Amino acid sequence: MKRISFLLVAIVGVAGVLASLAPASGRADEPASPIYGVTLPPGYRDWKLIAVSEIAAGDHSQLRAEFGNDIAIKAYKEGTLPFPDGSIVIAHHWTKESSPNNDKVLALAPMVAGLDNPKSFVPGAFINMQIMVKDSKKYAASGGWGFADFKNGKPGDEALHKTCFPCHQPAKDRDYVFTRYAP
Amino acid sequence: MKRISFLLVAIVGVAGVLASLAPASGRADEPASPIYGVTLPPGYRDWKLIAVSEIAAGDHSQLRAEFGNDIAIKAYKEGTLPFPDGSIVIAHHWTKESSPNNDKVLALAPMVAGLDNPKSFVPGAFINMQIMVKDSKKYAASGGWGFADFKNGKPGDEALHKTCFPCHQPAKDRDYVFTRYAP
Repeated sequence: MKRISFLLVAIVGVAGVLASLAPASGRADEPASPIYGVTLPPGYRDWKLIAVSEIAAGDHSQLRAEFGNDIAIKAYKEGTLPFPDGSIVIAHHWTKESSPNNDKVLALAPMVAGLDNPKSFVPGAFINMQIMVKDSKKYAASGGWGFADFKNGKPGDEALHKTCFPCHQPAKDRDYVFTRYAP
Repeated sequence: MKRISFLLVAIVGVAGVLASLAPASGRADEPASPIYGVTLPPGYRDWKLIAVSEIAAGDHSQLRAEFGNDIAIKAYKEGTLPFPDGSIVIAHHWTKESSPNNDKVLALAPMVAGLDNPKSFVPGAFINMQIMVKDSKKYAASGGWGFADFKNGKPGDEALHKTCFPCHQPAKDRDYVFTRYAP
């Protein structure tokens, strides 16, 4: 009995060490971004919402949602900068689609009374997601953030990921995070 | 000592009964919508996201997020129609604001390479929220849904709330809910 207990403790211990060696945001066998090794956090679509946004670009317009894990959301709400290690921010992008059915209703709805010809747009197909993971030691060379851009479950190439940190430089005074918390 | 314990039990018991008499979505002393008596569920801004949307209407354009409580989210994910009692869906509306700072970055970002003059829009001020609470018995006369439109923490008037259910009629085949779950 004692021997079995010891074995169990040993197995749990080894499992713990292996888990700690895996990337912060996933298992070692998952697809990870070049340069940073950032993987897709499971279940992030159910995370709390930081904000929404739109990119207007004609037929290529996007609707977007930005999600945060609990560490990032707490930092946002408390105004903590820089974000603490363990913070994860994910931008989730959809095509932007017209909704003629909603438009018919909007034309009658009192909430839009006085609005000139209101038009409704909704998410269409999922395009890609972009991830920022804070680890001030591991990612010291890129402002403390590891980056990833995933499309169809696969990370983009190294050339794409080389552009992440330079692109985020203009938001340096907000710890390189563009998205502000929406009230 | 025994007397104090009894008193405590009695107080807790009375509090429990009072709580059970309050509206499903809040306390009895909270502002409630006319006709339906729907109150603001606390903490809904941290609920899971159903979808986002946009109303384009010139200077009065809006960005929107639709949140669901756990019962509603489960129904969405499993395709359950009609929504089960206890489902709550909340649409949270912001003004839509241009972001010239983001635009500068977008012009350089490889993710929008090939897009013609992409423009970024983000949430501005919070405008109002609209609530649907499912209780098939209590709200049998309005498709099983109780409605509320809140602005500045206060529900709109009875005239406004008389328009809720008729406006949602076109979505009858989706249990009167316009918003679809975004992938």
